[in-house]
Amino acid sequence: MTVLFTPEQLEERLRTVGAQRYHDLHPFHRKLHGGYCTKGQVQAWALNRYYYQAMIPLKDGSLIGRCEDPNLRRAWRRRLEDHDGFDGESGESEVSRRPGGLERWLALTDSLGLDHAMVVSTRRILPGTRFAVDAYVHFVRERSLLEAVASCLTEMFSPRIITERMVGMLAHYDYITRDTLAYFDKRPPQAARDATFALDYVKRHARTPDQQQAVIAALEFKCSVLWSMLDALEYSYDTPGRIPPGAFVPPDA
Amino acid sequence: MTVLFTPEQLEERLRTVGAQRYHDLHPFHRKLHGGYCTKGQVQAWALNRYYYQAMIPLKDGSLIGRCEDPNLRRAWRRRLEDHDGFDGESGESEVSRRPGGLERWLALTDSLGLDHAMVVSTRRILPGTRFAVDAYVHFVRERSLLEAVASCLTEMFSPRIITERMVGMLAHYDYITRDTLAYFDKRPPQAARDATFALDYVKRHARTPDQQQAVIAALEFKCSVLWSMLDALEYSYDTPGRIPPGAFVPPDA
Repeated sequence: MTVLFTPEQLEERLRTVGAQRYHDLHPFHRKLHGGYCTKGQVQAWALNRYYYQAMIPLKDGSLIGRCEDPNLRRAWRRRLEDHDGFDGESGESEVSRRPGGLERWLALTDSLGLDHAMVVSTRRILPGTRFAVDAYVHFVRERSLLEAVASCLTEMFSPRIITERMVGMLAHYDYITRDTLAYFDKRPPQAARDATFALDYVKRHARTPDQQQAVIAALEFKCSVLWSMLDALEYSYDTPGRIPPGAFVPPDA
Repeated sequence: MTVLFTPEQLEERLRTVGAQRYHDLHPFHRKLHGGYCTKGQVQAWALNRYYYQAMIPLKDGSLIGRCEDPNLRRAWRRRLEDHDGFDGESGESEVSRRPGGLERWLALTDSLGLDHAMVVSTRRILPGTRFAVDAYVHFVRERSLLEAVASCLTEMFSPRIITERMVGMLAHYDYITRDTLAYFDKRPPQAARDATFALDYVKRHARTPDQQQAVIAALEFKCSVLWSMLDALEYSYDTPGRIPPGAFVPPDA
């Protein structure tokens, strides 16, 4: 039987989802941070993850595009700012040119020696990456606004993984520098701020057992998106002969 | 036979669409600005137009939500800023709290004596208003990105109408003050900037006769949205006995 949780009980359930399903538990994640990836595998990871980064602003724009609450739209607009940066053109914000997360991710793929135009084209990513990311974008466009907001709650767990990732990658790969990882320097405070906002939103708006179960399911769904991206990567780039037709082949493969 | 226009010829065609179809030619517009509206008609106009204002950020968010070009997304984000304003919360933009166009429109409906919550609920607008505005939102979500951008080109003509509107309304209605019309003070430079950007975009991206015709049709479509909103208003509020069930009834009717 489905029960009505208090907001605090709901938060506890959501944290349990993260503890059991977040992709820091994935074998590929451990391999990447532990220094056990070849450079080709690190390249494949950064290339495929770029598609996720590139689609995030479309997901966020779509959420704003169906949100009738100006307060939520304003708060959500900060995610667009974080990912797309500022072009320094005149506008109400009057913010000088400043790169966003997407540009910083491209600095990472550049520094890994990947061809810039190839990365931006996303043509050589794994089909498994594309389908997982597209499923996320569709989820945010099509499910209830509450579920769309809840699907972002993986950010509750990302500051931890990002710190692990930076420390691990800097320690283990000599071609990775602090500059290369500029993306990750910026993300933890942004993710923490966004997660706090989204968690507060779902705790206030999930008022029935059905809504609360939908919120939990949305977070499980999002964990499965991130998880299956690593499944695809691990499957294709761990054992020779498994890279699908058309996908990126590392120079060292 | 369809011909390929130069970018300048395309612009000329678009200006012709505006000269022939923009809603400054509508009888209701002339009545409103000429001082021939009752207060109830001015209230009905402001109430119904609020729905258009309220849906603009959803239209703009939806465009960002399907746009893979970060440059276009960044430029388009300024429209969200203009309409939704800034909440002064921490973010990359670090802009202090500042009201947007939507809030300024509500200052207009407040000053006209309309109940704030009733306006925000949009429950008492005309069905004709709702269907026209919703058609615009759907157009931006469903047509090509080029057509979605082109549908905003009515802004090329709005600085003119706004100036006429301010001068006319201030001169003819003693309950209208400069403060009441704060919305219109802000809009002309924003609209001019956005129109310049969008016009440049369509001139660069409409490269085939079919694309150019689609751009012209998109602007015609958008003119018809604005026009039919005034048709609905004029039909329902000009002659007694025509206000549809559930719609706003002015106290002076």
